[in-house]
Amino acid sequence: MIQKLIENIKKTNAPVVVGLDPMLSYIPEHITRASYAEYGETLEGAADAIWQFNKKIVDAVYDLIPAVKPQIAMYEQFGIPGLSVFRKTVDYCKEKGLIVIGDVKRGDIGSTSAAYATAHLGRIQVGSQMLTPFGEDFATVNPYFGTDGIKPFLDVCREEKKGIFILVKTSNPSSGEFQDRLLTEAPGAPSSSGGRWAADGGFANSEKPLYEAVGEKVAEWAEAFMGDAYSYVGAVVGATYPEMGRILRRVMPKSYILVPGYGAQGGRAKDLAPYFNEDGLGAIVNSSRGIIAAYKQEKYAAFGPDHFAEASRAAVKDMIDDLNAVICGQ
Amino acid sequence: MIQKLIENIKKTNAPVVVGLDPMLSYIPEHITRASYAEYGETLEGAADAIWQFNKKIVDAVYDLIPAVKPQIAMYEQFGIPGLSVFRKTVDYCKEKGLIVIGDVKRGDIGSTSAAYATAHLGRIQVGSQMLTPFGEDFATVNPYFGTDGIKPFLDVCREEKKGIFILVKTSNPSSGEFQDRLLTEAPGAPSSSGGRWAADGGFANSEKPLYEAVGEKVAEWAEAFMGDAYSYVGAVVGATYPEMGRILRRVMPKSYILVPGYGAQGGRAKDLAPYFNEDGLGAIVNSSRGIIAAYKQEKYAAFGPDHFAEASRAAVKDMIDDLNAVICGQ
Repeated sequence: MIQKLIENIKKTNAPVVVGLDPMLSYIPEHITRASYAEYGETLEGAADAIWQFNKKIVDAVYDLIPAVKPQIAMYEQFGIPGLSVFRKTVDYCKEKGLIVIGDVKRGDIGSTSAAYATAHLGRIQVGSQMLTPFGEDFATVNPYFGTDGIKPFLDVCREEKKGIFILVKTSNPSSGEFQDRLLTEAPGAPSSSGGRWAADGGFANSEKPLYEAVGEKVAEWAEAFMGDAYSYVGAVVGATYPEMGRILRRVMPKSYILVPGYGAQGGRAKDLAPYFNEDGLGAIVNSSRGIIAAYKQEKYAAFGPDHFAEASRAAVKDMIDDLNAVICGQ
Repeated sequence: MIQKLIENIKKTNAPVVVGLDPMLSYIPEHITRASYAEYGETLEGAADAIWQFNKKIVDAVYDLIPAVKPQIAMYEQFGIPGLSVFRKTVDYCKEKGLIVIGDVKRGDIGSTSAAYATAHLGRIQVGSQMLTPFGEDFATVNPYFGTDGIKPFLDVCREEKKGIFILVKTSNPSSGEFQDRLLTEAPGAPSSSGGRWAADGGFANSEKPLYEAVGEKVAEWAEAFMGDAYSYVGAVVGATYPEMGRILRRVMPKSYILVPGYGAQGGRAKDLAPYFNEDGLGAIVNSSRGIIAAYKQEKYAAFGPDHFAEASRAAVKDMIDDLNAVICGQ
């Protein structure tokens, strides 16, 4: 699936993911009104409004971009009807030839991670049938449990030719609270950072932040599960921490980096060059609000709520130009 | 909700949570056969089998225990029909007077955590209506994002009188890979462990494992959001690491500890005394497989698949006796 992602990126010349993270407040009133008229002011009504909104945005942008990233929380908050629309959105985007990154940030002990991996990337046996629960192409995964929590995802990825992006350094302001804490090896404690030490040919660097230790594990997992030039195991590194992005690009040379935090969260294109490799590949930048609610920005306000999807298309084009201006190899 | 949990624990004299984590392989054939006959070998058929299985177990044990902990991954792997049964199970258990801990391990950047908090503990406004997406009483939360990712859960807890259990030290074998890494303060870096340093009256202890730093943050969040004797903010500490349980009990004096890993994962009652306070409260121990698939163990095999729920009842009683033999204050 990483090959297909890279093909799509090359075809569109756009290292861009559109985050399908709908909030009711983004949806023009003519849509919610129609959905509530049909289904009432219910979870079903809200979910239908989201579906109508998503479909129009996907129709307007699918030919410009390689991938979408629906954030499952935004659907989960509408209960079962919301999750049904998550599933419909995944299917619809796949029909349009888009790669779907399920932004689910799951992770648990082994047997439970196996169930999550099945839910989002795999298939499940029921009697004699093999059935697809949600069917995304990639999923985001939380690393707090260590290898046990990651391995079941790798197993399913191998079986189904899917991929994951593991959280390394997240885009939010407090991400440093734990992720930036400096680690030191306990005397006699087993080192889990052998990979980098070996690569550096020594043990000079005995202090490093947690995000770097996580990045080193990602690099190990990535090596074990390669596509052609890139691995099926990628990483999430926020656009809001470009210095760390620069370091992590080196720590995880074979991993695609999924970069949230561009635009609404404050990340700027000119800071993102270090996330890419010299081949112009290696990273894919997400924007959610900045695209799907573009018509609410002054810059695109002229489109108005009736033409919200065209505003999204204009915002995608601007984002692609903005990024391509700074990427090496373009 | 922490008050209600403690009342339930006192009433039943059982610091026990039954983990409703059904796998198809646990479900007796007469149940799956009937469900497949009605719904086919489909996600709906599998979900119906889980629902029938859950209902019988809940009916057999609800009067003995204070709480249940459905693991959402086990439902999510059956897609929308599976999640519908998760929701039905939550509702059914609440009707039976049980506290429901949604083992969802969600966590993300602020705006997304807010959506997860709404999904699992809150209500969402749709037009003029306030609707309940899933409606658990507690949820488990992943701390990797730091305060930003936790705060939206605290806000919803305050509003709705719900609670959370934050992952501190998980029960799986590789949990130490990141959680046990020793931290050291960077020169000039802002300390996020001021709480403990102040409490210790000094700065002698400049190295600590990550799980302890997370525990210290849990203690801070817990202080800010108290019930009577205990906080609405609890922690997850695995039964499989009793020495760490002892330390974390002291680090987070006001937090209830949710203890997974008893039984099938290897945690033993005699190791669990340090997780409890002297009042006999402060911890609640989960068993999943050991209870819901009890009839598959040699000890309870005489019940047979037809009486699987009675086997679960016997296993719950044994677990309560096992734990009460070691808890102070009993």
